[in-house]
Amino acid sequence: MKSIIKRTTIRKYTEQNVSDDMLHQLLEIAERTPTMGNLQLYSVVITRSAEGKAALAPAHFNQPMVVSAPVVLTICADFHRTTAWANQRNASPGYDNFLSFLNAATDALLYTQTFCNLAEEKGLGTCFLGTTLYNAQSIIDTLHLPQLVFPVATITLGWPAEQPALTDRLPLRSIVHTETFEDYTAEKINDFYKEKELLPENQHFVDINHKETLAQVFTDLRYTKNDNVAMSKHLIEALRRQGFIE
Amino acid sequence: MKSIIKRTTIRKYTEQNVSDDMLHQLLEIAERTPTMGNLQLYSVVITRSAEGKAALAPAHFNQPMVVSAPVVLTICADFHRTTAWANQRNASPGYDNFLSFLNAATDALLYTQTFCNLAEEKGLGTCFLGTTLYNAQSIIDTLHLPQLVFPVATITLGWPAEQPALTDRLPLRSIVHTETFEDYTAEKINDFYKEKELLPENQHFVDINHKETLAQVFTDLRYTKNDNVAMSKHLIEALRRQGFIE
Repeated sequence: MKSIIKRTTIRKYTEQNVSDDMLHQLLEIAERTPTMGNLQLYSVVITRSAEGKAALAPAHFNQPMVVSAPVVLTICADFHRTTAWANQRNASPGYDNFLSFLNAATDALLYTQTFCNLAEEKGLGTCFLGTTLYNAQSIIDTLHLPQLVFPVATITLGWPAEQPALTDRLPLRSIVHTETFEDYTAEKINDFYKEKELLPENQHFVDINHKETLAQVFTDLRYTKNDNVAMSKHLIEALRRQGFIE
Repeated sequence: MKSIIKRTTIRKYTEQNVSDDMLHQLLEIAERTPTMGNLQLYSVVITRSAEGKAALAPAHFNQPMVVSAPVVLTICADFHRTTAWANQRNASPGYDNFLSFLNAATDALLYTQTFCNLAEEKGLGTCFLGTTLYNAQSIIDTLHLPQLVFPVATITLGWPAEQPALTDRLPLRSIVHTETFEDYTAEKINDFYKEKELLPENQHFVDINHKETLAQVFTDLRYTKNDNVAMSKHLIEALRRQGFIE
């Protein structure tokens, strides 16, 4: 628990390698994470080679940790294994649909987070790359993912070469609802975001981007409607190609 | 790490309550889990009342732990909070789309798994209810979830009143691929599933259901194509109603 309280995302790693023994041990222990029907609807592609990392980098907008980390893990929702098993056992699989994608994505994401909790407990540093969903088709092509396999998370992994300060979090009262969902009032929103908005680094972001508010930095620059709409379209096309949507 | 190695899903709980202090502490520490842009795109609805649990139970096919557990947590993908904040700060949010749903679902699921790992480290027992996605609209109605909030996970929580045996897992070699995805051959599928198929409890399942193979128990009874197709349709309708699909 101590490691979770102090965790920060690590983007810079030392030259020290992560041994196969340690990596495999962590990946195996993480398998204790529960999954749908205990079917374990996920796969992990381990990228260690310089060529492999360079091939993945563009999909992740060339963020430097993709090539500098000793290990890159691409965790995939995988209904292909279960489907192959069923076909080979005179059973008729029916997992080429949207629910099955979300079931497998759920298994894969829960598995990913246990792996990260375990890795950080060992002193390793991790960075979760949200870019995986933005450029899924590129990752599918690079890793040769077959039908019913879809990348949902990428983790860069290595020994920390930095000690970033803890980042802010919303107060617990902004996350938790009792019995039913209590809608947010203007007063509550002001209360929830006050601390975040007053942080000097966030005020600096607003200034250097010539924005009025921190929220505008998110809506106008970091996560814009235009980008989200375009990437939603690509994501749905990629899900269709992988066989998860008709 | 020890608690993860030995973890099992717990469906029976003692009469002992889980204190608000402990629950809130665990929910707060779990907030260290990374999220997209540090926006924390999730919410948690805590259900403790008998009425609240009874209202949720049908959505979970009346599995007994929903009413018998001292605490039921419904973890939601939530872009409503961020959207309300943006609207209040003269910013134009664009999160009513499919990518944004998956971004928020990712945040919510990673948060859920850290919470479960922390709870189990404290000796609590958890059960992850996959039924959340099957009957999402019913949960949305029961918990009064507004637009851009969608339930993605339900956890029942309490002090264990059972000690189930460890369940089987696929061998690590069935999960891991090196550099690129190596497709499954017939030999590999036989190797991956051999141990699972030979387990006495699984052979018993096959027998009592009058099936030829274990895979048929999954495809014909537990997770059928007809159910998956019907529930996919409901899921997409629910996502549309909540504003995540046009």
